[in-house]
This record gives sequence, structure tokens and C-alpha cells, in this order.
Amino acid sequence: VVPVAKTELKKVRSLLTRKGRREHQMFSAEGIRLLEESIRFRFWPRAIYYAPAVLSDRGAKLIKQFKRSHIETKQLTTRELNSISDTKMPQGLVGVFSLPEITAPELFQSRCRRLLLCENISDPGNLGTLIRSALAFGFNVVLLCGSTADPFAPKVVRASAGSVFGLRMAQVLTKALVEFVVNTRMTVIAADLNGHSDDRLTDRKLGQRRFLLAVGSEAAGLSPEILSRADLRVRIRHSRNVESLNAAVAGSILMKRIYDTMN
Amino acid sequence: VVPVAKTELKKVRSLLTRKGRREHQMFSAEGIRLLEESIRFRFWPRAIYYAPAVLSDRGAKLIKQFKRSHIETKQLTTRELNSISDTKMPQGLVGVFSLPEITAPELFQSRCRRLLLCENISDPGNLGTLIRSALAFGFNVVLLCGSTADPFAPKVVRASAGSVFGLRMAQVLTKALVEFVVNTRMTVIAADLNGHSDDRLTDRKLGQRRFLLAVGSEAAGLSPEILSRADLRVRIRHSRNVESLNAAVAGSILMKRIYDTMN
Repeated sequence: VVPVAKTELKKVRSLLTRKGRREHQMFSAEGIRLLEESIRFRFWPRAIYYAPAVLSDRGAKLIKQFKRSHIETKQLTTRELNSISDTKMPQGLVGVFSLPEITAPELFQSRCRRLLLCENISDPGNLGTLIRSALAFGFNVVLLCGSTADPFAPKVVRASAGSVFGLRMAQVLTKALVEFVVNTRMTVIAADLNGHSDDRLTDRKLGQRRFLLAVGSEAAGLSPEILSRADLRVRIRHSRNVESLNAAVAGSILMKRIYDTMN
Repeated sequence: VVPVAKTELKKVRSLLTRKGRREHQMFSAEGIRLLEESIRFRFWPRAIYYAPAVLSDRGAKLIKQFKRSHIETKQLTTRELNSISDTKMPQGLVGVFSLPEITAPELFQSRCRRLLLCENISDPGNLGTLIRSALAFGFNVVLLCGSTADPFAPKVVRASAGSVFGLRMAQVLTKALVEFVVNTRMTVIAADLNGHSDDRLTDRKLGQRRFLLAVGSEAAGLSPEILSRADLRVRIRHSRNVESLNAAVAGSILMKRIYDTMN
């Protein structure tokens, strides 16, 4: 077993922070379930770090699978592994991945037909849940703007249950987004507490065009720049006993409704 | 200003733990939004603790409102308030409430027509979100069993956005629950990855009877005891790209569908 240099471990540990991810253009994901998802979506890690002492049988099989796929696997002590892990009970394996880049031309591709925009979704759990629901309900791009959390932060990756490996994500500026929407003549649907009832979303016309669903923060909703571009503003019909729904729940309910309308 | 005894502060601080809440049969809730919700639902605190130095104008108004409603308000130093708070940025006010009790006869009342059962929902954020959606979609009772989080834990109360004040909640044993369901001839709808598609929930017959919607953990689903009592097992139709949805999202989507069917 070749020992792993301290500087390398320090680098991997830095991926737990936004600064480290930016600097190295990499992120990490740990645990059996997430790494299984990375394989399923053929989103290959640059390297896997593992500590044999904490590995379950399923974990050991996964390491073998990575080895067979010619992924570099590096053995660590339990203590070293804990130092690069973000969880209380590490499962003994951490993967390191290149940050994917999505370019403007890719976004313009007509394959990207169903887009979710998350504006000011700062809670990592909510963002991860929205990404998971997006993949579940047939969206293929998630755009992020404003103060939305970093989609490759450990909490977001975990809350997404590995869905970050299954779709394209891109951080965008509101101005660029508005241009993009105008240029592509995309239909914009905005979640808005003052909008029409979500019954409107059953309209079949949705299925004929590319569209973007925009979801904002619970407290403030979407910004005027985005709201003013909306072709349809929808609110989720519910009892008056609550003011609003959780942002991830609201976004997921709208995505489900769109999915049911189109499939 | 009469200083508050250290033993009293210790007691309030203990309400941040399950043990403390059980021992004193009380819980605490902090911040402007949550305490405004407690007023809206007339779920009155036994006392309010506040630190004038950190109170915003809205917070100061709220303190006045509690005083007018003859709620005991007790002034603390900022440091004392921080010691009884669970958040990083306390807003300067903490309310202390009696744990509500819900008795079996109350549950049997026919007013409790729409019940949500949470089995093994251990994540506090997911439980709070489910409680919030339950109130939003016309459910009036939330039952908790198995390893479900304590509904009066600070994180659950926060994630519920104060909905814990707006509906009845009760911890139940699975055995008692099954008896209750049999005795009341309640319709049981179970969230189940192997169930029928959720299109079935549009059936109008739902509206004519009392029913219970049961939601289990993402990993294991509902227990056989509950699944075997289900009149209808439903899964949420989604793409095969993900294995399952977040538990709070899944439960909320089913509640919304039921709400739309019945309203």
C-alpha cells in the first residue's frame, strides 16, 4: 500500500468548502449509495479513497467495481478517511470528481427541453431535494442563480441522493438567463404566490415547447426580472391555514404536475 | 427588571432536548415567525423570554402583543437568551409552551377526518415539512410511530414553519393504530413503491369517508403491519432515472393530490 501524501489529503479535504471546489475545479461525494449512483450515470470519479477497516461488504464490492473500471483507488487509514469526510458515520469511501462544465451552446441545444431554475434557494437540503425531484420528473437541466447554494456542496449532493450525477447544472446570471429565454423563445412558468391556480398547468400546450420552471425563495419569491418574463404564473392551491409551502415541496409539486401533463 | 433564576434558564434550555421536553412536558419555539404563528392559532405560550438588545421592531411589537394577551414575559440579557436558543442568529425571543396532549377519544371524534401517519420519518426537516404540508392540504391530525422524530424538537418546529401549532399530533404504537383503524373503519392509503400509480387517487370515493394516509421511510418504506391494512397502495409515477423521491416530497405530493380530489 502506497501512503497518500498529506498535501493530497489536504486538497481532498478542501473540496468540502466552496473555496476549495472552485480552486481545484473538483468536488467530492461519499458513501455507498452516492457512489453507486455515480456509476449508474457513468459520471466517473478521478479517484476513490477508501479505508478498508470501515468498509462493509457492499462497500468492498463497490471498490472492486471501480478498480475493474480502471478508476484509481487509494487506500487510507480510518483516521485519514475521517479527515476528508463530511459525515458523522463515514462508510469508508470518498470519490473525487471533476466539476462538470455546461456551456452556453449546450444549453441552447434543443435536447435541453425542460429546465428548472432555482433562484435564491439557499438551503442545501431544499436545493438537493429539488434536483432529485427534477431528475424524477423528466427535467434535464437545473439552472441556479442569485444566492442559491452550491450544487456540489456535500449537503446538496447528499440531499440529491446522487441526482447531481444524472442531469446538467449551471450557475447563471439573471441577465444572461433572460437573454437565453428570449433567444430560445422558451415558455417560462413561474411559481408565484399571487399567480393563477396550478390547475392551469394541465393545459396540453406545455408539451409542444421547451420550457423553464422558475422557483424562488419561500420568503421573497422570484425576482421581478424573472417574474416579468413569465408566460404563466402559478400558485399551488392549498388551504389558508398556511401562508406558503416549503420551497422544495412547492417546486416538486409543480414539476410533478407538469410531468403528469406531458407523460 | 426582575432577574430570571439560573434554575429556570436551565429548565428552558433543557427543552432543546427530548429528555427535557418529556420531563417538563413543555417545548420551546423561538423567533418572530414561529411566535406569530402561535398567536394566529391561539396556541398560547406559558411564558415568553426576550432580550431587548437583539429585538427588531417587529419583535418588540410581538412582545407587546403577548403582554396585552396577559402572557408572562421575562426579560433576559443577550447572553442568557443565547443560552436557551437553538439557532445561530437568535431573534431575541423564545416562547415556552405546554406539550399538547391528544387522547384516544379525541382521535375517534369524527371531526378528525383526514389523518397523516408518519412511520420512521427520522429526519427532523422531513417531518417538519410533512407537518407543514399536512396543514396546507387540509389534514387535521398527524400521527407518529416507529422511529419518527419528536415533533416538538426545535428543528421540526422550525421546518414546520409553525404548523405544529395548527393541527393535532400524537405518538401512537403500531398495534393501537391498527385497532383504531379497524374500529373506525377508516380508509387507509399507503405510500408504497410497489403500489398502483397515483392516478388512482383521483377517485371521488375518497371524499366520502375518513381516511389515513401513511408515509414511511425512504429506505425501507412502510412496515408490513401497516401495509397489510391498506385499502389502497399508491406510488408516485416518475421517471426511472431516480429510485425514489424524498419522503417529505412524496408525502406532500400525495396530500396535494388528495386535496385536489376533495376540494
